[in-house]
Amino acid sequence: MVVVDIFRATSCMVSGLANGLKSIYPVDNVEECLALGRKGYITAGERGGIKIEAFNIGNSPFEYMNAEFEGKSVAVTTTNGTHALVKSLTAHEIIIGAFLNLTATAKHLQQNEQNVVIHCAGWKGTVNIEDTLFAGALINALGSVELVDDASRIAHSLYLQHKDNLNHIAEASSHAKRLSRFGIEKDLEFCMTIDEYDIVPVYRDQQLWLHK
Amino acid sequence: MVVVDIFRATSCMVSGLANGLKSIYPVDNVEECLALGRKGYITAGERGGIKIEAFNIGNSPFEYMNAEFEGKSVAVTTTNGTHALVKSLTAHEIIIGAFLNLTATAKHLQQNEQNVVIHCAGWKGTVNIEDTLFAGALINALGSVELVDDASRIAHSLYLQHKDNLNHIAEASSHAKRLSRFGIEKDLEFCMTIDEYDIVPVYRDQQLWLHK
Repeated sequence: MVVVDIFRATSCMVSGLANGLKSIYPVDNVEECLALGRKGYITAGERGGIKIEAFNIGNSPFEYMNAEFEGKSVAVTTTNGTHALVKSLTAHEIIIGAFLNLTATAKHLQQNEQNVVIHCAGWKGTVNIEDTLFAGALINALGSVELVDDASRIAHSLYLQHKDNLNHIAEASSHAKRLSRFGIEKDLEFCMTIDEYDIVPVYRDQQLWLHK
Repeated sequence: MVVVDIFRATSCMVSGLANGLKSIYPVDNVEECLALGRKGYITAGERGGIKIEAFNIGNSPFEYMNAEFEGKSVAVTTTNGTHALVKSLTAHEIIIGAFLNLTATAKHLQQNEQNVVIHCAGWKGTVNIEDTLFAGALINALGSVELVDDASRIAHSLYLQHKDNLNHIAEASSHAKRLSRFGIEKDLEFCMTIDEYDIVPVYRDQQLWLHK
């Protein structure tokens, strides 16, 4: 199972672990997050694209790159991304995918024979462009796989049509339009960067860790 | 609200009304259908792509073109299509869309100022290629409309990528693969025919009628 929330939860997770965080603890609600904060976790997250006031950081990948956080752990809750993760717990293995670690994710999946489910967080229960594009990109990177549903075929088709200009189509998404009100164009552009990092976050004992 | 189930419910409805049926009564289950049959309706429908044995006809558009049915009414239940219709009853107006009446559907919608919802029946609650392609084709035919969600943008993109070879992509769909076991390639090809008919079925008093 690959959990995906390109704008911006899984892009943050990949960025944080690639930049020295020890672990990331995704939780479903603000109260759990604050409780972990009292135990020494850095608290992170947003609702509706805006940082939660009582938290240390919001939901920008750049906030996850703070040198002071090296070796520390983050507790995070977001509108869609952590929710998707918490709903994926019955999977054999859960990893975190983003454009930032696309090839690393594909290589990790190719190393075993398990069926792959790409769990796109989407937006409030509906499909979105950026997660669907990533699903298509991952299908493409996996090479000769059998697609078992039409959602996969549509995602692959969408990626093939737009692969030379991913930013352009991602900027047209509803999510990008909503978020642009918060002045985070730089975040969105970074989240669409392919293969910035060669790491794979794996979920184990309720937290995300670098796969070794 | 435009209800769409290309393979094959809404393609059948368009074909039937274009070929002389008086009305079509969509119901949610087999028992209701049989009860209407006892009142003189022609019974039609399938479950899992196969005709229900006690019914007069199955779910092929060609069965709906029987000259003996002229002026008569059909009661129909199908796996996905009639279910989508029954779930759409709160809409201001419900019409039936298919490739067979694509331009007529677009023209009908352009004649009023209402927002448009394209309700794709899909397959057991998930997205499918053929209904998504139709949604994209309808968006394209409507011209300059504001798309309010990413599902619409993805559908439009899918259509634009495949518009010169709709049959090819439709044949790759899960649904077509399932149905090909029943030897109905001719049905599927017909369902992908654009503008065979210049009619629009409208839902009124629990039944579908030709819009005059």
